[in-house]
Amino acid sequence: MRKLGVFNNVSLDGYFVDANGDMRWAYRDKPDAEWNAFVAGNASGEGELLFGRITYELMASYWPTPLAKQNMPAVAEGMNRMPKVVFSRTLDKVTWINTKLVKGDLATEVRKLKAESGPDIVILGSGGIVSQLAQEGLIDEFQIVVNPIILGKGRTMFDRVTQRPTLKLTKSRAFANGNVVLNYEPAA
Amino acid sequence: MRKLGVFNNVSLDGYFVDANGDMRWAYRDKPDAEWNAFVAGNASGEGELLFGRITYELMASYWPTPLAKQNMPAVAEGMNRMPKVVFSRTLDKVTWINTKLVKGDLATEVRKLKAESGPDIVILGSGGIVSQLAQEGLIDEFQIVVNPIILGKGRTMFDRVTQRPTLKLTKSRAFANGNVVLNYEPAA
Repeated sequence: MRKLGVFNNVSLDGYFVDANGDMRWAYRDKPDAEWNAFVAGNASGEGELLFGRITYELMASYWPTPLAKQNMPAVAEGMNRMPKVVFSRTLDKVTWINTKLVKGDLATEVRKLKAESGPDIVILGSGGIVSQLAQEGLIDEFQIVVNPIILGKGRTMFDRVTQRPTLKLTKSRAFANGNVVLNYEPAA
Repeated sequence: MRKLGVFNNVSLDGYFVDANGDMRWAYRDKPDAEWNAFVAGNASGEGELLFGRITYELMASYWPTPLAKQNMPAVAEGMNRMPKVVFSRTLDKVTWINTKLVKGDLATEVRKLKAESGPDIVILGSGGIVSQLAQEGLIDEFQIVVNPIILGKGRTMFDRVTQRPTLKLTKSRAFANGNVVLNYEPAA
């Protein structure tokens, strides 16, 4: 069984997107070589990416472009190379390279995906997906980057979670740019 | 000028109170000697506490009781001993020892308080107060404890903050119980 993880930035007030659904506040203009190496390291590994439609469309409109290759070459290479799954009932086709469109019931299909052989799966963005899969207990690792910014309004990735799960902190790491990466697993 | 700080627990989804206004989820039943020493250390210091009415009433109904003295003697001693200020337009009087009721405009009165001599001031709970004072740029330190729990619904302490302030991370510390204490100052 392969693992299903989440990697997302959140603001200090817990939002992964602002009130406009935007995630660009997480890309602040403050160079931090260690942070950049961390992000590039994530993108250089093996892994299958899982998205909802909204995040998919956002990412598919950016990572294949020359601008992305110029701004963040290592991350763009990884994002384009890695196998990707997008869950959507409304999309008819996907154009981003190495992407598979899945239309069935989310939890059922994710259970099947996890049972297949392959690299570990990571959800990026996709708050609705995170929320449903966390509620189903299907997420094995949460990697949450607390950014040193207050958004005031926005959306959390856990708004459908009702059982108040407690988690086990497995690692934490602070960066000079003020980001703190927190790793959790579901508590036993 | 003395400093004004905030000390609050938040869930991984950013809430300092749950949907019922309750903060008891932060007091999980998992003993951690290092964490208990940290909390007791906070309560043993000098400091003036600042509350809104709701948090004041919650705390005033607990800390002076024999139960509090039995459960958390060091914290109860500090909470009762320290000078306290409560902001409320509706309260007529306060009964908790060492407490002063203030009725004027929040930001104006806090500017006056900060200019007085005395120990540093710390806000506990009191999301409405934190939100207004953060919006006014009057908070000098944020000490936020990210708890390893997902609440799903709740209230943040920053819902009136509109300028998207960025902060400077000054310290972070992870505890065996999974709590991570993050210290921030306003960015220059």
